[in-house]
Amino acid sequence: MSPRRLEAFSDGVIAVIITIMVLEMKVPHGADVTALAPLVPVFLAYVLSFVLVAIYWNNHHHMFHAVHHVSGGTLWANMHLLFWLSLVPFTTGWMDENHFAPVTVAAYGLVLLGAGVAYFILTRVLLATHGHDSAFARALGNDFKGKVSLVLYVAAIALAFWQAWLALAIYAAVALWWLVPDRRFERLLAERK
Amino acid sequence: MSPRRLEAFSDGVIAVIITIMVLEMKVPHGADVTALAPLVPVFLAYVLSFVLVAIYWNNHHHMFHAVHHVSGGTLWANMHLLFWLSLVPFTTGWMDENHFAPVTVAAYGLVLLGAGVAYFILTRVLLATHGHDSAFARALGNDFKGKVSLVLYVAAIALAFWQAWLALAIYAAVALWWLVPDRRFERLLAERK
Amino acid sequence: MSPRRLEAFSDGVIAVIITIMVLEMKVPHGADVTALAPLVPVFLAYVLSFVLVAIYWNNHHHMFHAVHHVSGGTLWANMHLLFWLSLVPFTTGWMDENHFAPVTVAAYGLVLLGAGVAYFILTRVLLATHGHDSAFARALGNDFKGKVSLVLYVAAIALAFWQAWLALAIYAAVALWWLVPDRRFERLLAERK
Amino acid sequence: MSPRRLEAFSDGVIAVIITIMVLEMKVPHGADVTALAPLVPVFLAYVLSFVLVAIYWNNHHHMFHAVHHVSGGTLWANMHLLFWLSLVPFTTGWMDENHFAPVTVAAYGLVLLGAGVAYFILTRVLLATHGHDSAFARALGNDFKGKVSLVLYVAAIALAFWQAWLALAIYAAVALWWLVPDRRFERLLAERK
Repeated sequence: MSPRRLEAFSDGVIAVIITIMVLEMKVPHGADVTALAPLVPVFLAYVLSFVLVAIYWNNHHHMFHAVHHVSGGTLWANMHLLFWLSLVPFTTGWMDENHFAPVTVAAYGLVLLGAGVAYFILTRVLLATHGHDSAFARALGNDFKGKVSLVLYVAAIALAFWQAWLALAIYAAVALWWLVPDRRFERLLAERK
Repeated sequence: MSPRRLEAFSDGVIAVIITIMVLEMKVPHGADVTALAPLVPVFLAYVLSFVLVAIYWNNHHHMFHAVHHVSGGTLWANMHLLFWLSLVPFTTGWMDENHFAPVTVAAYGLVLLGAGVAYFILTRVLLATHGHDSAFARALGNDFKGKVSLVLYVAAIALAFWQAWLALAIYAAVALWWLVPDRRFERLLAERK
Repeated sequence: MSPRRLEAFSDGVIAVIITIMVLEMKVPHGADVTALAPLVPVFLAYVLSFVLVAIYWNNHHHMFHAVHHVSGGTLWANMHLLFWLSLVPFTTGWMDENHFAPVTVAAYGLVLLGAGVAYFILTRVLLATHGHDSAFARALGNDFKGKVSLVLYVAAIALAFWQAWLALAIYAAVALWWLVPDRRFERLLAERK
Repeated sequence: MSPRRLEAFSDGVIAVIITIMVLEMKVPHGADVTALAPLVPVFLAYVLSFVLVAIYWNNHHHMFHAVHHVSGGTLWANMHLLFWLSLVPFTTGWMDENHFAPVTVAAYGLVLLGAGVAYFILTRVLLATHGHDSAFARALGNDFKGKVSLVLYVAAIALAFWQAWLALAIYAAVALWWLVPDRRFERLLAERK
């Protein structure tokens, strides 16, 4: 089966996720600039979540250029990823509501870790259906960045209980590290030409 | 008419349904782990609804690989399915709000039954437009699993008034049974190669 | 320019409209069947709005099978249609909130009239870009049903101030009349084969 | 990489943005025409935001007809545009809530300016990947209208603190100016035939 509809459905789900997060930013009732002050951390959390979800879409987009067929297992591995991403608006809102209290920052990291693990599983399922000597496998490589990100999320979750802002700094650092879309699959496409 | 736009529209509607359900999980005001305790059943209901809607998308995705043309009747049979699925966030929220009271659990089952019947009607309409000796008809087979699911939902709705948790267990069991996407249409595609 | 992206964008907007309407049905706090009683008219209004928006999607879907190219004017005529459809959740909610008071029923009809006029304008713009002797023009014909619907909506809006339920009956009757998707474009496709 | 999925994802995000804005129009509790009176400015703000977001979609649609491949940089330039557009419902709601107080009108303009700058950056990134003597570059031309719009937004933001309605008039004037979709890319397509 071709991955076309899996891509279209994922696009739809991620488009809704990334857009409904903005609804967490409640319109302030004051009409001057100071009314926006309490929204500053909420806004920064929105930017962080927007960038993190955007990174998943970008990498998904890049990776599926090397995917030729999907199995029933691929559909569920992809749904599993979308499930974790669908929780991002909730954990973002919980952090906002409680001024980045340690537990809420750890919960935010837990959802990021879940999405990261789900993405890792998705790459393994695709690897199994395409074969270890496929172009997909060569483009994926040893997936160093993906594995280190998971370790960093685990560290951040633990650190959140000590210094919540340190955990947030790690989430932001991982996001910055991934800002460059996944070149491995771009290189693969370049080779084919 | 090709089923391309019917697929795209269904993808969009199901993507919105599966994502707005997360809005039913109201952000708790407490900032410690105990604040999440009342959310546990709400979260489990979300997981169940997410999986059930995901199953419909997966089966829809698989089935339409064997669909070559759609008629006006197909469009309405599909809309009828989307209508019942669109009620899933409502019945999920009603269960959450009332701690899985019998009536709400039965209503949840009624919507699942409605979606199941709508899916059954959709297969009959597609059967009529493709013919009983088509590849579609052969792949669909006697649709044993679809028919048994409807019977199980009827039983669960009745049981909900006696033991609500038993009904929920049946919904979850049906979901687990369907976790494996509809192999019939995968087999059809494999044969064609 | 090909109509592919116009179709995809319209699918997305209509998918969101048809799904967010369900959010107007507020989850009741009671846990027995009587708690649902006040929701019955709200549910019927949801069914009516769902069917009316679904009719627009179906006819849009059918009509665009005969559309080969879109101009800048087509994009705006289509956006104008989507604008009126985007108001359906609002007028549905207003009727719900005020127990189908005359003004709210008339406002509901006004939005339907707006959407009907916008659809009519869209057919004229497509007629102008395809030519009066095109297959599109032949399939569209004299558009009797479209024109009569507009007259019926005008009548219903006036009647709403006298007997609101009569106006609602007319809206429902128009919906039933359109339940059969637009055969004209199906016939055109059949001829081509 | 082909721009197909970037287009599909952008369609999804913009479809959600344009539709959730209508949720800012809270259903009034009164049941007569006077209950709608306080909604009139809110409705006009909705129309303005709908038209402005629609313009971005139209221009995006036109421009991408001349785009043949996208790079990692294009994805982020496009995400950056979607980010600013995702803030339009928030600033629209803030203006509504505070009766178009100066700061809120300036904030609305700031988001429009952000979207305008993001669109400008997107054209530069596409220019860099397609080359300055490409069909894309010729169709884009000197982008006079895009640059003047940015200057007008800056002027409107400053004027908002003096006369908020003047700023709103400028936003509306820019919208009217852009109502005609971007002919440059239509001309390019006509030449190719």
